[in-house]
Amino acid sequence: MPVSPKFAQPPEPPYYAVIFTAQRTPGDNGYEKMAARIAELATGQPGYLGLEGTEDSEGFEITISYWESEECIRDWKAHLDHQIAQKQGRKLWYEHYEIRVARVERAYNMLTLTL
Amino acid sequence: MPVSPKFAQPPEPPYYAVIFTAQRTPGDNGYEKMAARIAELATGQPGYLGLEGTEDSEGFEITISYWESEECIRDWKAHLDHQIAQKQGRKLWYEHYEIRVARVERAYNMLTLTL
Repeated sequence: MPVSPKFAQPPEPPYYAVIFTAQRTPGDNGYEKMAARIAELATGQPGYLGLEGTEDSEGFEITISYWESEECIRDWKAHLDHQIAQKQGRKLWYEHYEIRVARVERAYNMLTLTL
Repeated sequence: MPVSPKFAQPPEPPYYAVIFTAQRTPGDNGYEKMAARIAELATGQPGYLGLEGTEDSEGFEITISYWESEECIRDWKAHLDHQIAQKQGRKLWYEHYEIRVARVERAYNMLTLTL
């Protein structure tokens, strides 16, 4: 069975992850449309390696994007359209969020021997 | 407004994250009970710094646990009860999962200035 496209498929480590954990506000307020647009924009950014995200029925969301380098992450953060989305996020869409930038050192999955 | 207990509150970086992204199988098959037990066990492990997790209505789950060191992560992975849960996970609860061990380099949130 092929692995679902919900899973990112970055190359072998090392690479970087931006871990975004967030509590959404009630209602949509333009979120779905902007989130789709931002995800599409990220896909075209230099050094983008993939995205995984999920959200429960109470609006607790975790989204992880994978990147080649810290420099790529900084460039994406500074992207104008992304800046606008970040501002909207703070104002409208999120009660709270945490962002953690991490260097992935090793990786394995259900199909590989564990490290 | 205090930050929801759904958010982990690890100390300042550096620390480590185990990123677990998974597609659940349909049905419970004893998962909820074991997951609660394993989460409680993790809390008591040396070097444990917190947990964040969420799952959508289609069973796509992301759980991230935070740890002081890679050594603590290896010890937790080798814990006997956790080993049993891992085996059940592969056999019963998950269609697929990915595990990434990462070193958190920097962190900020909605309330702090961004880096």
